[in-house]
Amino acid sequence: MILISNDDGYQADGIRTLMAVAREFGDVVVAAPMQQQSGKGSAITITSPLRAVMVKDEPGMRVFLISGTPADCVKLALDQLLDGRHPDLVLAGINHGYNVGVSTLYSGTMGATFEGLVHHVPSVAFSYGDYRTPHTDFTVCEPFVRDIISRVLSKGLPAGVCLNVNVPYDKGPIQGLKITTTSMGLWTNEFERRTDPHGVEYYWMTGYYENETPDDNTTDIYWIDRGWVSVTPCKVDQTARDNMVKITELLT
Amino acid sequence: MILISNDDGYQADGIRTLMAVAREFGDVVVAAPMQQQSGKGSAITITSPLRAVMVKDEPGMRVFLISGTPADCVKLALDQLLDGRHPDLVLAGINHGYNVGVSTLYSGTMGATFEGLVHHVPSVAFSYGDYRTPHTDFTVCEPFVRDIISRVLSKGLPAGVCLNVNVPYDKGPIQGLKITTTSMGLWTNEFERRTDPHGVEYYWMTGYYENETPDDNTTDIYWIDRGWVSVTPCKVDQTARDNMVKITELLT
Repeated sequence: MILISNDDGYQADGIRTLMAVAREFGDVVVAAPMQQQSGKGSAITITSPLRAVMVKDEPGMRVFLISGTPADCVKLALDQLLDGRHPDLVLAGINHGYNVGVSTLYSGTMGATFEGLVHHVPSVAFSYGDYRTPHTDFTVCEPFVRDIISRVLSKGLPAGVCLNVNVPYDKGPIQGLKITTTSMGLWTNEFERRTDPHGVEYYWMTGYYENETPDDNTTDIYWIDRGWVSVTPCKVDQTARDNMVKITELLT
Repeated sequence: MILISNDDGYQADGIRTLMAVAREFGDVVVAAPMQQQSGKGSAITITSPLRAVMVKDEPGMRVFLISGTPADCVKLALDQLLDGRHPDLVLAGINHGYNVGVSTLYSGTMGATFEGLVHHVPSVAFSYGDYRTPHTDFTVCEPFVRDIISRVLSKGLPAGVCLNVNVPYDKGPIQGLKITTTSMGLWTNEFERRTDPHGVEYYWMTGYYENETPDDNTTDIYWIDRGWVSVTPCKVDQTARDNMVKITELLT
């Protein structure tokens, strides 16, 4: 059984594509946010309770809408909604837009995927560079989604590793698949200040992404820009192990 | 100038302690969430605008309350609220409760800290094991907070590295400071199902944390349990570099 979530919500085209391809491999349970949850990262809901509404219950396909974040969705499904079954796979996406570079910090798609990983389920995030909603055509993603699901189902993933898959949009013919690292960078000019009709200021998050490692030919953005599907193996641990000695010298 | 945020909100005792100690080193600007933001990780607010209310404007101390997440607070401060000044330090906390192990994924305290890191500001998260609010006594944290601020201000931090500091509670006399790694584990039995007065089910997040690496004598929890202040150097990048070859073999 394959558990699917996303961060764009159940109405998004991307999750429909993912559901259709996953269904070729067996039973599917969807636990998707009721509302758009982009930018929620690994956020969880502690101070209010969650609701789960089953909106589809067909042979081989159950769909739950959850009143929380992507991480909430996977947590709640694993703990309460799968009738005690352990999924063979957790999939998240297909996200409308890339989850690359430092933006993976804020990615609800990755939040759902990390949740599967933490619970020892092979987990894969899928994202596609086309941001247009609701009429994004995910057809180009399908063979890669199918191939990766097939390989991960049959061979598993190394302990403690999940995959972050990004499919290029508008970069010419897709060249194939590259195993990559996460590029570093940051969002700059992040806010637009406006004044409301009552004369009070407010701020919209906006800005543009600055890739700080454009020449690093191991990275996600480098290969996506050249037409390759980027697959980054990811882990939960963020310990800066290379700097343990330096920090010891600094602080003790 | 030191920029301070947290995830417990401006009313929390922990941020008051941090503000007082930071003030010994120079000007302080606080950008704290208006509301409790525990569990928000690196979540950001995209689909609604943010408000910033200045509630204190004294010589050397400005306080803004922000209608968003901890990461929003640091982003908005850096982009809009510091009159073009670049802070010498971003501090987050002192959190009411540990941010260790896999829980760092969900930590708004770490979300604020990573935001400072991404923007190339030396950044430190402080957390204390005492969960009791609103009457937590943070006195025991003060000498460590003071010492770490002093050292990081004078020597900086290595590029791409921030610190996650956790002070033990109720573990006997504090033994000193250890540089540690993030332990691995997961939350289990994560939800309690209830039925509302209208007969509809809902779910509260709860459960207990299972440390999966209890014998690893490099980890945060190992040393906190033995009375040491844990300092974990952290980075944004979650690429599982040790597994690049394995994933290449699996997928290509």
